[in-house]
Amino acid sequence: MFKRIALISGNHAAEVRDTLVAVIRFLRSHNVEVVPDEFCARLMREAGLGAATSASPPAGCDLAIAIGGDGTMLRAARLLADYNVPLLGINRGRLGFLADIPADAVESNLAQILDGQYVEDERFQLNCQVERAGRTVLENSAFNDVIIQKWNIAKLVELQTFVNGRLLHSQRADGMIISSPTGSTAYALSGGGPILEPSLDALVLVPICPHTLSNRPIVIDGNSTVEVVVGTPEIDRASLTCDGDIASVLQTNDRVIIRKKDKRIRLIHPRNHDHFSILRAKLHWG
Amino acid sequence: MFKRIALISGNHAAEVRDTLVAVIRFLRSHNVEVVPDEFCARLMREAGLGAATSASPPAGCDLAIAIGGDGTMLRAARLLADYNVPLLGINRGRLGFLADIPADAVESNLAQILDGQYVEDERFQLNCQVERAGRTVLENSAFNDVIIQKWNIAKLVELQTFVNGRLLHSQRADGMIISSPTGSTAYALSGGGPILEPSLDALVLVPICPHTLSNRPIVIDGNSTVEVVVGTPEIDRASLTCDGDIASVLQTNDRVIIRKKDKRIRLIHPRNHDHFSILRAKLHWG
Amino acid sequence: MFKRIALISGNHAAEVRDTLVAVIRFLRSHNVEVVPDEFCARLMREAGLGAATSASPPAGCDLAIAIGGDGTMLRAARLLADYNVPLLGINRGRLGFLADIPADAVESNLAQILDGQYVEDERFQLNCQVERAGRTVLENSAFNDVIIQKWNIAKLVELQTFVNGRLLHSQRADGMIISSPTGSTAYALSGGGPILEPSLDALVLVPICPHTLSNRPIVIDGNSTVEVVVGTPEIDRASLTCDGDIASVLQTNDRVIIRKKDKRIRLIHPRNHDHFSILRAKLHWG
Amino acid sequence: MFKRIALISGNHAAEVRDTLVAVIRFLRSHNVEVVPDEFCARLMREAGLGAATSASPPAGCDLAIAIGGDGTMLRAARLLADYNVPLLGINRGRLGFLADIPADAVESNLAQILDGQYVEDERFQLNCQVERAGRTVLENSAFNDVIIQKWNIAKLVELQTFVNGRLLHSQRADGMIISSPTGSTAYALSGGGPILEPSLDALVLVPICPHTLSNRPIVIDGNSTVEVVVGTPEIDRASLTCDGDIASVLQTNDRVIIRKKDKRIRLIHPRNHDHFSILRAKLHWG
Repeated sequence: MFKRIALISGNHAAEVRDTLVAVIRFLRSHNVEVVPDEFCARLMREAGLGAATSASPPAGCDLAIAIGGDGTMLRAARLLADYNVPLLGINRGRLGFLADIPADAVESNLAQILDGQYVEDERFQLNCQVERAGRTVLENSAFNDVIIQKWNIAKLVELQTFVNGRLLHSQRADGMIISSPTGSTAYALSGGGPILEPSLDALVLVPICPHTLSNRPIVIDGNSTVEVVVGTPEIDRASLTCDGDIASVLQTNDRVIIRKKDKRIRLIHPRNHDHFSILRAKLHWG
Repeated sequence: MFKRIALISGNHAAEVRDTLVAVIRFLRSHNVEVVPDEFCARLMREAGLGAATSASPPAGCDLAIAIGGDGTMLRAARLLADYNVPLLGINRGRLGFLADIPADAVESNLAQILDGQYVEDERFQLNCQVERAGRTVLENSAFNDVIIQKWNIAKLVELQTFVNGRLLHSQRADGMIISSPTGSTAYALSGGGPILEPSLDALVLVPICPHTLSNRPIVIDGNSTVEVVVGTPEIDRASLTCDGDIASVLQTNDRVIIRKKDKRIRLIHPRNHDHFSILRAKLHWG
Repeated sequence: MFKRIALISGNHAAEVRDTLVAVIRFLRSHNVEVVPDEFCARLMREAGLGAATSASPPAGCDLAIAIGGDGTMLRAARLLADYNVPLLGINRGRLGFLADIPADAVESNLAQILDGQYVEDERFQLNCQVERAGRTVLENSAFNDVIIQKWNIAKLVELQTFVNGRLLHSQRADGMIISSPTGSTAYALSGGGPILEPSLDALVLVPICPHTLSNRPIVIDGNSTVEVVVGTPEIDRASLTCDGDIASVLQTNDRVIIRKKDKRIRLIHPRNHDHFSILRAKLHWG
Repeated sequence: MFKRIALISGNHAAEVRDTLVAVIRFLRSHNVEVVPDEFCARLMREAGLGAATSASPPAGCDLAIAIGGDGTMLRAARLLADYNVPLLGINRGRLGFLADIPADAVESNLAQILDGQYVEDERFQLNCQVERAGRTVLENSAFNDVIIQKWNIAKLVELQTFVNGRLLHSQRADGMIISSPTGSTAYALSGGGPILEPSLDALVLVPICPHTLSNRPIVIDGNSTVEVVVGTPEIDRASLTCDGDIASVLQTNDRVIIRKKDKRIRLIHPRNHDHFSILRAKLHWG
């Protein structure tokens, strides 16, 4: 079914060397071509698994496999943001919200998946743009969340938030998280946000340490346009981060516009995938 | 436009006497027939405004006006639960989330609304059923929330929750709130839940004082079937309440099934209605 | 050192039968006399361990051992509330905040403790009185917490709270928890309260699902007198519970007065006792 | 009684010009000498109120008056940190937690205070030291709080916290607040901490957006030594702030040691001062 598979890892790739080797051996034994990213390519050379093609993921691939953890899945999602290639995650140890194939059961799971026995789970991504003095100075994607937060200062930032052009609120806070359902179990949860079912067509806005205690998380329609205006001249600086990567340092009066991206991420899970069971395990419920 | 209007109040109707009289005089002067509920009928007699018809709301009415506050709106919603009659709320004092016409601006607002200048805002309701030993022993509606909670005991209850037949979690808590977007600014907010945009097609499950601190509020698709099973024989009792009214005392192994009701509540607002502005005012934002 | 030891269990005593038998055999082999409570006495008879004395704990005892869990410790604390007898807790399974000797290491721990190798940890208790129409109608002790909460109703109660005669606040809520440091890891934690170091001379007042979101937990001096007045005639009922036992159903205008009790509970721990390590284990930190 | 009074303001001093002029006229008419800080001195020159002495606060002063708001009070507390000079706060507008004399009642309040009719309220301060490779590289005071937080990165920091030499926990979070009772109504409250009565001899440790949801605020004895070790080499940077001012950028393995400072801040309040009433007003209770 899948004939050419991208392999994606990250900085900590050395920790997944054994898993990567097992994955490659399994795929090659099933006549699947692999297209490693730079991290995987280096590990392959070191392991004597031959030179990689000059292609880089996801060129021409019909599946991508991320090996690492949820952080690696975010990196993979970024690579795939504008493609339509499904993504499978192999965890290097602990179970992840996104990477749900355990390293010690790679082969049985891959066998099933190559055999077409899997479920697909479409997740939407976020698009964010920064407008400064009428011009778009940045455009970026996020799978989990877009965060506007204080940066390099120990003071609150003042943020005005509009939903579909209507003022929601002006608030002073450490920042605000705009999260997709996928991101609701990541940083937004630490900030006091609710858990959103992955398939929910909604965004959640979570203020970070707001000065006004009644500034609670708000869940809005997934098709909304959210606009956050960075306020007051006395504020030194704020920054914009997408999935934990610094996208830009913001200036006063910058407008950050967040909306659902038109392309989705297609996650592949083993057939017996159960998101609630992952929640129970990860959050130590019961 | 509206020719026959139901008037709905509640226990504290005496506090709204002046407002009620103003509403009736205005409606009669515009040749609108009024159909008072028992509370309004008594006030009308006391005020010498003539005998009421023998009909009771919402029979044959094309609009209902609730005079009181959000509690009165819940009562009105219950009366209208199975009808398709729009509902307008006049507040006796403070602004309400639902009753958003202030008592001191009744006439100008009614004039506009009779003139067709209003916005309609459809809200879904919840239906809940209790199944005991295979039989449905109770069925009820709720506009805000369905709550399963400990009752007459100072111990936690054990609740198993299923969403669309899949186990979400077993938890020990004081109880659990299943709230519509409308109810998200009511008791669910006190319990730590997020605010849901009124038009969002979602339910929020909010545990009340859960023993496990990571048992956070969860937002799920509005078309889900939620099933809560009351657990463990050591538990004395739990109760079910709908919009704050006691619906039933529950027994161990009772299954409470909650899903969206097929009929909606049609709220009528003044033309300049802005839900975010009500949130800002009621929650003292900024 | 300890010559006569009270043995205390509870309703679920059968689950601790083996542990109890091991404790009794160990103590008798060290010439320590045991004074069982009714639950332990029944188990002893069933296990053929001889008739109990007619005395009941803690008469003439120089130590009490509670076998069960934190609930059993609360029961033991209640029995010892007015005595000066130290208390040791053996856990039937999972680690407890209070009962910190694991069932599978009873003998080595008891050997050390009989040998004088232990640490003592004094905890204060709460005293609460209910005054109705100028008379004290109830007086009770609590080790963890005193709770004034709605009872048998689905509405908020209105509570006025005074600290040392000064109004702290009037609030509408499901209730309020007045907790000792010992109780801060029990129900108060589920209600959103902070953790208090056991030796801290402080009380924490935790509102339960308060209507006003800024009604946050408040930590006050341990020597304060807290007075909670149950409000408004429209409220049907509220109840007072001490350590989860129902002490009294309250009436409107009842005044509940809570202050530190003059007698303390003396907990005995193994020498290597570390409260922070119990916190880390119980709360799954890291 | 008070013969020489320091006048302290801040960056936004222009907003308090009128209040400052009123204060100076009142004090001079009562033969009190004023010692302005640089901000007040500039305003005095502009207002033609004469040249200031060359002294700067609090040299030789027996009282300090801060004019501005709680931010100005923090600045004043920093100036007075090592002196024994009492401090009075005049608010430029809204009521403050610390500056509790309203601008529109300056003269009547000052008259009473000069007449000896006031209450004194001693608050403790925090001292913090940074140890790096065995050397103390920084020492600083804080009235509200010491914060160790991520800096210039969008990742969690890893912090190990010890209380009196015992490990409390290792946590991953945006940071941690160590707050005095005075600071408990400032940033710590936004972070989810409890309110501490001002006179309580306690510190509160509030994790900021901790990854582990059960990492709750902890209240410990005021005489504890808290030590926070900045962890893991993968972390880029963290910073230390005292009362919102950046004290230092931290490095991996830096040890931040926080304990109560031996000198206190002596706040002066009008005779009818009531902290609970300030809480009710500032937090919109009821």
